[in-house]
Amino acid sequence: MDLILKPVAHYHGPFGSKFGIPRQSLLAAVEGRIVFTPEFRVREALRGLDGFSHLWLIWGFSANRETKGEWQPTVRPPRLGGNTSIGVWATRSPYRPNPLGLSCVELVRIDDMELIVKGADLLDGTPIYDIKPYIKYADSHPDADSAFAEKAPEHKMEVVIPESIPLSPEDREILTGILSLDPRPAYQDKPGREYGITYKGEDIRFRVENGCLTVISKDKLL
Amino acid sequence: MDLILKPVAHYHGPFGSKFGIPRQSLLAAVEGRIVFTPEFRVREALRGLDGFSHLWLIWGFSANRETKGEWQPTVRPPRLGGNTSIGVWATRSPYRPNPLGLSCVELVRIDDMELIVKGADLLDGTPIYDIKPYIKYADSHPDADSAFAEKAPEHKMEVVIPESIPLSPEDREILTGILSLDPRPAYQDKPGREYGITYKGEDIRFRVENGCLTVISKDKLL
Repeated sequence: MDLILKPVAHYHGPFGSKFGIPRQSLLAAVEGRIVFTPEFRVREALRGLDGFSHLWLIWGFSANRETKGEWQPTVRPPRLGGNTSIGVWATRSPYRPNPLGLSCVELVRIDDMELIVKGADLLDGTPIYDIKPYIKYADSHPDADSAFAEKAPEHKMEVVIPESIPLSPEDREILTGILSLDPRPAYQDKPGREYGITYKGEDIRFRVENGCLTVISKDKLL
Repeated sequence: MDLILKPVAHYHGPFGSKFGIPRQSLLAAVEGRIVFTPEFRVREALRGLDGFSHLWLIWGFSANRETKGEWQPTVRPPRLGGNTSIGVWATRSPYRPNPLGLSCVELVRIDDMELIVKGADLLDGTPIYDIKPYIKYADSHPDADSAFAEKAPEHKMEVVIPESIPLSPEDREILTGILSLDPRPAYQDKPGREYGITYKGEDIRFRVENGCLTVISKDKLL
């Protein structure tokens, strides 16, 4: 019995490419907005939500799946270096039979009918299919075993953003954090090659050499 | 952009009616099985899953939605006595725009191709659309504020299951736990009226009087 979902909202945040987005709500400082679609823009539906500090978002990977079609039973998670093959059910990979993502975010405030949230690992424009309150006694299991995902990914790159690149102190800090996680695809380590991520509508270009990531330029996307 | 999901598995457990199922994984002792549909019965897809103690299930409320059609912006959660109206996004109610449920379960073991899990608040036969590993650093927030759902529901009924009702000690304990939560619909308190829940294919009948719930009979469902 198939189930048809329609988006109830969309996420709007600074990340605008599939490349370089930190997984699993790592960047607590990154703020975004949840904007309801017209049909679900109903004030009463938010009653009581402000009592919760955290929310679950169930969202669609549609924007960053490169391929559709057949599912693959195994994936190669970036955090295992891209060389180890793991069953899809043991990962949060986008390449799963039903392309649903699950993220816990902090609810900062409700601004008119928009939810301002922090820590979402979602691309700008991501469709959201459900929003649920985080219920501590059922959802928080600090003693859980999480196998190879036991610890948050480590910052593994030295990052240099020259002063000549114009950035606010806050954006500089956020970008340094993202880039230190090494946002290149796991399979790639080509010294001298130029890579890019999209942040707040701008193309941030960088190179990696000897474990040091250097930002080269920042330009408005057309 | 609508998203079409197909079940990847079904849950099989002791609860066989929409009535009386404990919400939010309360009954840690209740065991069930996750059985993949033929298309997704692929051993490699489970590789590495046994390293995780807990899993997320994203499942469909289809089996226990009484009404389909229009969504309602507010619901009256049973735990608030059924009299207080709360926005649907602030609840885990089934009556939401996309009928998705989210539950954390304990992975007990993998038995051939079936996942044996504990603590699922799901009806027998519930379709499962996604299974994800519980990732502690991203999912566990012991300091979260959960408003009116801050604490697990309290056991509020004295329960009497006469010795004449044949039950194993384990089933007796589980049923006493479920019934002590008062599985009647929140709006109903009719002394002397008979209610029923389905447990392991049997109709468990009971009455409530003066805060005491007494089991009357237990019979195989036809």
